[in-house]
Amino acid sequence: MKREFNWKLISKILGSLLIIESLFFLAAILVDLIYQENTAVYFLISMAFTLFSGIILLLIGHKSTPVVGKREGSFIVTSAWILFSVFGMMPFLLSGAIPKVEDAFFETMSGFTTTGASILNNIEELPHAILFWRSTTHWIGGLGIIVISMALLPVFGFSGMQVFSAEATGPTKDKIHPKISETAKRLLAIYISLTLAETVLLKLAGMSLFDAVCHSFGTIATGGFSTKQASIGYYNSPLIEYIVIFFMLFSGVNFSLYYFFLKGKFDKISKNEEFKTYLLIIISFTLIIVLLRIITDKPGISELEPVFRESLFVVSSIITTTGYVTVDFSLWPVYTWIMIIILMLIGSSAGSTAGGMKVMRVLLAFKYSYSSFKRMIHPNAVCPVRYSGHVLEENVVTRVLSFIILYIIIFVTGVLVLSLSGMGFLESVSGQVTCLSNVGPGLGTIGPTCTYSQIPVFSKYFLSFMMLVGRLELFTVLVILTPVFWKK
Amino acid sequence: MKREFNWKLISKILGSLLIIESLFFLAAILVDLIYQENTAVYFLISMAFTLFSGIILLLIGHKSTPVVGKREGSFIVTSAWILFSVFGMMPFLLSGAIPKVEDAFFETMSGFTTTGASILNNIEELPHAILFWRSTTHWIGGLGIIVISMALLPVFGFSGMQVFSAEATGPTKDKIHPKISETAKRLLAIYISLTLAETVLLKLAGMSLFDAVCHSFGTIATGGFSTKQASIGYYNSPLIEYIVIFFMLFSGVNFSLYYFFLKGKFDKISKNEEFKTYLLIIISFTLIIVLLRIITDKPGISELEPVFRESLFVVSSIITTTGYVTVDFSLWPVYTWIMIIILMLIGSSAGSTAGGMKVMRVLLAFKYSYSSFKRMIHPNAVCPVRYSGHVLEENVVTRVLSFIILYIIIFVTGVLVLSLSGMGFLESVSGQVTCLSNVGPGLGTIGPTCTYSQIPVFSKYFLSFMMLVGRLELFTVLVILTPVFWKK
Repeated sequence: MKREFNWKLISKILGSLLIIESLFFLAAILVDLIYQENTAVYFLISMAFTLFSGIILLLIGHKSTPVVGKREGSFIVTSAWILFSVFGMMPFLLSGAIPKVEDAFFETMSGFTTTGASILNNIEELPHAILFWRSTTHWIGGLGIIVISMALLPVFGFSGMQVFSAEATGPTKDKIHPKISETAKRLLAIYISLTLAETVLLKLAGMSLFDAVCHSFGTIATGGFSTKQASIGYYNSPLIEYIVIFFMLFSGVNFSLYYFFLKGKFDKISKNEEFKTYLLIIISFTLIIVLLRIITDKPGISELEPVFRESLFVVSSIITTTGYVTVDFSLWPVYTWIMIIILMLIGSSAGSTAGGMKVMRVLLAFKYSYSSFKRMIHPNAVCPVRYSGHVLEENVVTRVLSFIILYIIIFVTGVLVLSLSGMGFLESVSGQVTCLSNVGPGLGTIGPTCTYSQIPVFSKYFLSFMMLVGRLELFTVLVILTPVFWKK
Repeated sequence: MKREFNWKLISKILGSLLIIESLFFLAAILVDLIYQENTAVYFLISMAFTLFSGIILLLIGHKSTPVVGKREGSFIVTSAWILFSVFGMMPFLLSGAIPKVEDAFFETMSGFTTTGASILNNIEELPHAILFWRSTTHWIGGLGIIVISMALLPVFGFSGMQVFSAEATGPTKDKIHPKISETAKRLLAIYISLTLAETVLLKLAGMSLFDAVCHSFGTIATGGFSTKQASIGYYNSPLIEYIVIFFMLFSGVNFSLYYFFLKGKFDKISKNEEFKTYLLIIISFTLIIVLLRIITDKPGISELEPVFRESLFVVSSIITTTGYVTVDFSLWPVYTWIMIIILMLIGSSAGSTAGGMKVMRVLLAFKYSYSSFKRMIHPNAVCPVRYSGHVLEENVVTRVLSFIILYIIIFVTGVLVLSLSGMGFLESVSGQVTCLSNVGPGLGTIGPTCTYSQIPVFSKYFLSFMMLVGRLELFTVLVILTPVFWKK
């Protein structure tokens, strides 16, 4: 029969994670010391409160047994994201930067889930430390609270493998390293390196150091929070845009490919079908948009580069589910909206910081559909689905199909809920897909140049929940709501 | 190795089917003899041309071998629908009722696929025989050209089983009778009985005999063509509306249940999960819409019945993919649009004349999703999906999932194509779903009180193709477009 739910262990792990979060507040305090905008006190209070709560939880769980199952894993990951958001919104509320609870929760959940949807209409007026903390939630979320904790948990004497299996994005099986804490350290190293590289390049390209750091956080985490209301469009700099484009695209790649790259295992990269499909989608969607814009707008030769850059930026920003903006694509023709929604649904690679269904799953669904045609004509033939040279087991394929179907069910249900809450047709459809896939901007009144401040309070909480559901790949969160989960 | 594609047999069967179609023109000629509107000559020409073509095809295939496979089955069914539409649009063109080829083809394909989407803006001005032929295309399509031919094909000395497997709607396995021609005859008897019953009731409720026959054709086939521009709303009669509601709902039921009903096998009906779910969806969607309309519109006691009737009519008309209209639901709040789109996607029962994904498939997808949660918590447990008391084999479930995924892929691709052809967002989304699911009315400028006359020419042909793809359950048509189909 089923084991007792290990509440003590859960308390211990969540306690440790809150202590880590409290340390991140320190960085914001440092930023305030530089800019002297009197927000340090709010971060100190938040930090003290978070640290205190963390210690309490740690004490409650100090006699726990190191037994952890899938149920505890799902519960820890889901609660971690919610707790991080609840404690993480404190500075916004205390400082008055975001006065309403629903807005502060939405903004913080949007940060930790690396969505980047915002309710802020006055970004430039806010203190540096507040904006820094806002971008830091992306950075923490992007790496994954759990991946961070992977390096820490072994210190407590047990393997975090089960917890990891709930968090890992996508049906990837290529393990970087058998020891999970080593894996986490290497992922962390790659993550920090990418962040530093982009920061340096953005600084060299003309951004202030502060903006460079915040935008790097937002890019590598595929988040999308900016320090400017006009997002990347503010800088009006082709160089900055290209830098952001490339780092967004880098962040949509399975991080294990970087490890293989460093180890010189280039065949592992060239054989990776998801990577090739990812590039193919980006190239084809960009070319189609450029072509159609050339046909409709008839730009001069000198305008060709901007048309190309704008289109590539949109495609990169959307498929990587980052959500940075240089141009208001809600003013583009309707077919671009549809292409954008398709890109949002697809998302980027498994094992990246991006959201969405993931290229690998969509690719498998297409392959499986095609193999159904073969089976129809040759009912007795064996038509296996191949992926990166391997024949996939039927149960892997079925799991992928059921994920996609659940994604569609949640998508449709969410659109209905949003429309019932009073949102329009375009807003319900685009709001649901952009939040579920952790992108950020939608279409219509929640488009790239607008914010979520005007949507109903209920919709804010619902979309926050959708961000969480999408970020944790549906099952992790939703399984907790099923009777099966709690049945003895 | 693969057999040669049996072209001769295909020619023979298609020839026979065209001869049958030519006979149906006779009925329209009779109608013109009654109303004396000088259209008989157009039907005579169409009939002669169709009969001649049928005989030619029959002669080409007279020495065929009675060997038929899945490939021939798909090809026959798809070509039959296309040929019927090509020959069937002749009276529209010759009489000048529909002067443009793209419009005539759209209207006829919409008829034979029992979609009911129309380009006509002057229905009341058209001759009776033309309107009668238009409704007859529904009736022919609804029963299924193939089911009609089931009673004929055995005369030619071979079993139509393979052909049938390409046409049968939905993953149903409950065979009425082992002998396929007997099955076809019984289906035909039920179909004719329902048509007669509704005709009599509509006549008694105050319709003219002509209107009663045409609307029965449109209802039992779940088509939706009316003899009035304002559809059922024209009659302004609650009694007529309730009659149409009940016959629409009857037509969305698996026809084999009627056979079981007549045989007194009531347990087969009460155990049928699809039937129960179908009723549950209708009741719950109607109640939700009624409740929300009561909350928002605050109707008086005397207005409650019309609110209920209008809501039930919309739900019944949409889920059965009929598309008759009594009220302009495009003026209703956005959440009803989403509910309508969901109903369009679901459709009715397998083995009925309705379109859509079918209740059975959607139900199985939900069951499978829920069983995925169980599997997540108990990775080693066996969590089979049960349906109507039976445990389903994994490959049945996988086939259903792959159908739904293909439906989604086609849906999304179609929306993109329509938007590229110049249609708006709401029109692209609703147009694609309403045609793919063979419903008829969409939203926005193709809403219940509008027609498809103003959409681009390309979109008309594309949507005609989508009607065909949806009507023949995706694989039948699309497999012909794959290289696998033609590879030796």
